[in-house]
Amino acid sequence: MKLLTETLNRIEPADAAVREAAHRHIDRLTMPRRALGRLLDLAEDLAAMTRDPKFHTDRKEVVLMAGDHGIVAQGVCPQPSSVTTQMVRCFTQGGAGINVLAGVARARVSVVDLGVASDLSDLVASGAVRDCKIAPGTADFSVGPAMSREQAVAALEAGIRVAEALAPNTDVFATGEMGIGNTSPSSAIVTVLSGSTDPAPFVGRGAGLDPEKLAHKAAVIRRGIELNHPDPADGVDLLAKVGGFEIGGIAGLVLGCAKLRKPVVIDGFISSAGALVAAVLSPASRDYMILGHGSAEPGHVAMAKLLGKRPLLDLEMRLGEGTGAVLAFQLLDAASAIMNEMTTFDSGRVTEEGLK
Amino acid sequence: MKLLTETLNRIEPADAAVREAAHRHIDRLTMPRRALGRLLDLAEDLAAMTRDPKFHTDRKEVVLMAGDHGIVAQGVCPQPSSVTTQMVRCFTQGGAGINVLAGVARARVSVVDLGVASDLSDLVASGAVRDCKIAPGTADFSVGPAMSREQAVAALEAGIRVAEALAPNTDVFATGEMGIGNTSPSSAIVTVLSGSTDPAPFVGRGAGLDPEKLAHKAAVIRRGIELNHPDPADGVDLLAKVGGFEIGGIAGLVLGCAKLRKPVVIDGFISSAGALVAAVLSPASRDYMILGHGSAEPGHVAMAKLLGKRPLLDLEMRLGEGTGAVLAFQLLDAASAIMNEMTTFDSGRVTEEGLK
Repeated sequence: MKLLTETLNRIEPADAAVREAAHRHIDRLTMPRRALGRLLDLAEDLAAMTRDPKFHTDRKEVVLMAGDHGIVAQGVCPQPSSVTTQMVRCFTQGGAGINVLAGVARARVSVVDLGVASDLSDLVASGAVRDCKIAPGTADFSVGPAMSREQAVAALEAGIRVAEALAPNTDVFATGEMGIGNTSPSSAIVTVLSGSTDPAPFVGRGAGLDPEKLAHKAAVIRRGIELNHPDPADGVDLLAKVGGFEIGGIAGLVLGCAKLRKPVVIDGFISSAGALVAAVLSPASRDYMILGHGSAEPGHVAMAKLLGKRPLLDLEMRLGEGTGAVLAFQLLDAASAIMNEMTTFDSGRVTEEGLK
Repeated sequence: MKLLTETLNRIEPADAAVREAAHRHIDRLTMPRRALGRLLDLAEDLAAMTRDPKFHTDRKEVVLMAGDHGIVAQGVCPQPSSVTTQMVRCFTQGGAGINVLAGVARARVSVVDLGVASDLSDLVASGAVRDCKIAPGTADFSVGPAMSREQAVAALEAGIRVAEALAPNTDVFATGEMGIGNTSPSSAIVTVLSGSTDPAPFVGRGAGLDPEKLAHKAAVIRRGIELNHPDPADGVDLLAKVGGFEIGGIAGLVLGCAKLRKPVVIDGFISSAGALVAAVLSPASRDYMILGHGSAEPGHVAMAKLLGKRPLLDLEMRLGEGTGAVLAFQLLDAASAIMNEMTTFDSGRVTEEGLK
């Protein structure tokens, strides 16, 4: 609990003065006023996060948190938990969606076991997977809490430690995840934070649930919320009652990034659930979040609204793994290049009076 | 006229059989069905254009067509034509928005003079600018046609020749432009193709027109349309009456790409006007177009609809130069990497039954 408390105490809002300096610099760039639109808002956000109008984004890291979920026993998703393990092994061999897209973005991939329900000790021994396993999968939150309060804190602190370990060699982070069943806790989290007990508007097909089973999935999640009474004002309680280990790891990673003033690109539905837990624990941590893309999962719109964020990309993706976040990395590179490389009117090449 | 006719005759629709092969390959990739959303549609488009499900996008070229416009005499934009020249010189020195963003995308920039109203012979001599000058600026289309029919054909054929010259070393093209005043002919083109003579819904602030002058801009464009009676079914007539030399160059580039089966990413408002002229001349040429981004210019939504395209990015940009198109290049890289590098279920690492 000490690391979590210390982290929450040390998170400061992004720096408004640096944002203002970035804004003034942008006004001097050789283009009609604000003609690069949201890319310039992003540049100001990044300047304010990093305290540097000439921020860099070269060293990119996507952290892929994995965990299993007891809720799958209720038939809420078509895949067995064993697919989590299969995919984690796939990530370490390359060739999964996130490996391919991280390659395009020139980002490193770190795979972290927060709670996979199988023995990954061979991958841990080889260094392919970082071992932060809290337990081999959460409990079924439709019949009791997903985890203990102590486990929730442990998951959050594991995420913070990952951020601390990687930060010295990382300019920008992205979140990713793998965990069969993890749309259910994510739906539960957004339902509770929307002040509701009815998850129906926030439940989707996840990785391919039959449409006729959506009502069942919603009923199971609703039972979990009504049984556990998670406190929307207590991020640890929310995570413990209806969350997941990898969701806690993501929340911790985001808090660690906020403490360390590192921008973190949030991926889709499950990553946003982790970001929401972080935002409950530290509203100021939102200043360090960038929403990479809008997920095809219907509840993601409500999540974005709760986070106060507009997604950079909208490609109707629903793969997770961090794929939407790493695709957005290039926009961060573009924002950095604009701030560092674009000519200003002061160079005299172009008449300001003409262009502005 | 011979090159234009030959080009139009040789444009074939994209290949449906190759698209189908790409679709089948995507269904074997290690992810829930179609979980990468629009990125997979893009991959199929690119496969069908190039006739290769394992297409590549490494060699990228943005072609920046420049020209001036007689219509500026009517006070439709705040900048003088001399800014076109200043910006063209800036592009050749690096440091403009397009240089910076092309650098991020690892794309080459070609600058082509279609009709700049100044002497650029020093830049042509040094090889920094390709000389395709038709005339030093169009005529004022509010008092007569912007150019002769012969000049329109010459602009189109110049664009085709640029595509032909660059194609052997280029996998994917993007369009860009620079031309003070060129939102006016672009608004005229989308107005005419919408079957209207009222440009008001398609007129925006361009590079910074005062809002109170928008009505004047619309009135000037309307006068040009009513005076010239451009034929919406005749792309050459449309271009000649109310177009621009760089818009013709873009249209020609697009037609050349379509003939050569090279994907071409269309930038914003002015580039889309060029793409619309190409689509009138050859409806099949649309199969080779990718709309890079949605412009902040209000008429762009109607253009996208007429092209039958949905923009990949929506960042409220309005700089032109090709900036929105080169930002979209990375999504083409991502689509290529997915087709070439992602693991299939056939590798046996992941259970298809589990995941699909």
